[in-house]
Amino acid sequence: MSTPWTYRFAQRTKAIKSSVIRELLKLTQRPEVISFAGGLPAPELFPIARFQEACRRVLAEKASFALQYGTTEGYAPLRELIAGNMARYGIVAGVENVLITSGSQQALDLIGKLLVNRGDRVLVEAPTYLGALQAFDIYGAEYVSVPIDADGLQTELLDEALRSGPKFMYVLPNFQNPGGVTLSEGRRHELVLLADKYGIPIIEDDPYGQLRYEGEHLPALVVVDRENLQRDDGYRLGNVIYLSTFSKTLAPGLRLGWIVAPAEVIGKLVQLKQGADLHTSTFTQAVAYEVARDGFLDEHVRTIRQVYRQRRDAMLSALQEFFPPEVTWTHPAGGLFLWVTLPEGMDCQALFEVALRENVAFVPGGCFYAGSDEGRRHMRLNFSCAQPEQIREGIRRLAVAVRSQMTRLELVAV
Amino acid sequence: MSTPWTYRFAQRTKAIKSSVIRELLKLTQRPEVISFAGGLPAPELFPIARFQEACRRVLAEKASFALQYGTTEGYAPLRELIAGNMARYGIVAGVENVLITSGSQQALDLIGKLLVNRGDRVLVEAPTYLGALQAFDIYGAEYVSVPIDADGLQTELLDEALRSGPKFMYVLPNFQNPGGVTLSEGRRHELVLLADKYGIPIIEDDPYGQLRYEGEHLPALVVVDRENLQRDDGYRLGNVIYLSTFSKTLAPGLRLGWIVAPAEVIGKLVQLKQGADLHTSTFTQAVAYEVARDGFLDEHVRTIRQVYRQRRDAMLSALQEFFPPEVTWTHPAGGLFLWVTLPEGMDCQALFEVALRENVAFVPGGCFYAGSDEGRRHMRLNFSCAQPEQIREGIRRLAVAVRSQMTRLELVAV
Repeated sequence: MSTPWTYRFAQRTKAIKSSVIRELLKLTQRPEVISFAGGLPAPELFPIARFQEACRRVLAEKASFALQYGTTEGYAPLRELIAGNMARYGIVAGVENVLITSGSQQALDLIGKLLVNRGDRVLVEAPTYLGALQAFDIYGAEYVSVPIDADGLQTELLDEALRSGPKFMYVLPNFQNPGGVTLSEGRRHELVLLADKYGIPIIEDDPYGQLRYEGEHLPALVVVDRENLQRDDGYRLGNVIYLSTFSKTLAPGLRLGWIVAPAEVIGKLVQLKQGADLHTSTFTQAVAYEVARDGFLDEHVRTIRQVYRQRRDAMLSALQEFFPPEVTWTHPAGGLFLWVTLPEGMDCQALFEVALRENVAFVPGGCFYAGSDEGRRHMRLNFSCAQPEQIREGIRRLAVAVRSQMTRLELVAV
Repeated sequence: MSTPWTYRFAQRTKAIKSSVIRELLKLTQRPEVISFAGGLPAPELFPIARFQEACRRVLAEKASFALQYGTTEGYAPLRELIAGNMARYGIVAGVENVLITSGSQQALDLIGKLLVNRGDRVLVEAPTYLGALQAFDIYGAEYVSVPIDADGLQTELLDEALRSGPKFMYVLPNFQNPGGVTLSEGRRHELVLLADKYGIPIIEDDPYGQLRYEGEHLPALVVVDRENLQRDDGYRLGNVIYLSTFSKTLAPGLRLGWIVAPAEVIGKLVQLKQGADLHTSTFTQAVAYEVARDGFLDEHVRTIRQVYRQRRDAMLSALQEFFPPEVTWTHPAGGLFLWVTLPEGMDCQALFEVALRENVAFVPGGCFYAGSDEGRRHMRLNFSCAQPEQIREGIRRLAVAVRSQMTRLELVAV
């Protein structure tokens, strides 16, 4: 009897980066911990009665469709609803431009599969969404990182970065995860023009765009691209692939996202998706359609906005109240996250342990950088998933941890 | 303004094989066509009332779980139910050995991702499941094909094929898609011993195992492997990764499959799945659990078996009645498919066009071979998705098409 292959498994398989957040989250499950670590929508806002009615209707009226195999592109009425919703934001897309994915994460995986060959460079923001790095890593991506500031990606640094020849840019323009910042309108134009100049496509990831708590909606990159460049070449969508999801507006448990792209790009993605999972659940698609239709989604998003705005404000006030003046943080105009910067010398990985002893959790900033040694001074805080009182108490506890580490490092007057 | 990147898209992307079946199926959608081309379960058997009750219960009792993000491994009660069901077939697996996937197709994709580097060889049956070729192709797999006969994979040809150094073997032992044949018990032992001898893992794909219409259940390769080799090394599962699905027993629209593997393999697959789609819908998992629990699944599978057995028999009788004696076909003891072999010189791709004019459809055999020029004489017929009378009429039409092509080719006395 030879040695089972599983013994030799490590040598046989490709390198896989372990997910840091995943391991962290396990530590934050104790009920006494107030966790700002996740990125979960508030479950108390799930429209359960509407889901009940939607399930009843789908099973009564079209069970033999909803429980059967479906097309890879997705459920046509849902794709139409999505196209209609996006049209209000100026995104001109026909049904043929919309592909339903198993959550936005699958969109990132399919894009990695389509565009990344081992050693290809991907231009990302620093920091950026961890899940995108995970998705692209698997295909052997390397990264060119461009830092963000309060106005998003620093486009003045972009020209040089683009000269290094990235395959595409991955950008989160609205209420960025993890930074909480929004790309300014001027920079949107610069970004799109540079992308066009170098012929480098943009992946625009917009999971939070509808969750704006203040200020005016800014045009999506896909819109700026079309309008700026007056594309008249038969492609209603040019240089930008746009991603979004129902995870933050309806329910992440459905695993429903979508990709908007030129029809020929969708065609390629459809072939890849067919190999990946044949299609996304017809049942969840039919249910989501029944839930969202007739204006319900808009109404529901208004409720979410109101509740999350209060929670964001609760977190901002508590930070102001409890945190030492050496600490700074972003002021997100929407979304789920806020990004905290601690004084030089602080290490949020070490702080995480201290904070856990105080029964509060966050995600250390290092997770969100393509480069390995950045982000030590940063932490990501989520404000969507706790009540205002809990948020205040959590920030109070976190301030205790921060002060204790700062004192230990003699970064603050005792 | 430069040329949009989408113009140059073809050069930028990896090669993607188009799916033949996908295009064929579009042609078979006309209502007057009797289609044996798909692989769909009979929708009239979907247990709709049970689904209604399950949805009601899930949303009433655990909506804030079922609509929220979940763990990548899957819903623990569902994994336990799966482990318990498999135990009755001798498959010894704990919850830690079970990973829920977004349909069995995702299992194939994750296995490709984990094990296949560009140029790696995969040993497959000839013919084999098209979806597996699609999944592995994307990672740059090359193939070593070993032909099947009425007793499945011809293990006497395996030793030589294994010496060419495939990364793993992909085998469908029960009621193979597309061949409809079942690997004999003797060959199961030979296969497992050879896999062990060469240290080459087996991917055992078993979507139809429970749908047996005659004869005795044969032990799964994962069981033979464990028992034959008396693995006492702490791995309750050795050299075999086992895949199955709820698509044929409950509803494919849920997109729920699973992988059984040693815990360390599951660990790697979990990391890959996290990058691929975070997790499978918590909602469909919770609903499937409520539907399947308390013995309902077993009861329901008994009904399916009974109905499909009748349909298989209807197809076998009609073939006997209408087809010329030069044509042969397999006698599937279960599953959804039957494999027809036409006389030398026939071309099923051309026959497909003729058949469509007769308003009947099938899948030409060429789709199911890793090599490009095989399978011309074969066609796959599905018998699960039409009533017995329709099956008889469809086979009558198909016989007209077959005879007309045989006559034209002078393969039969006029």
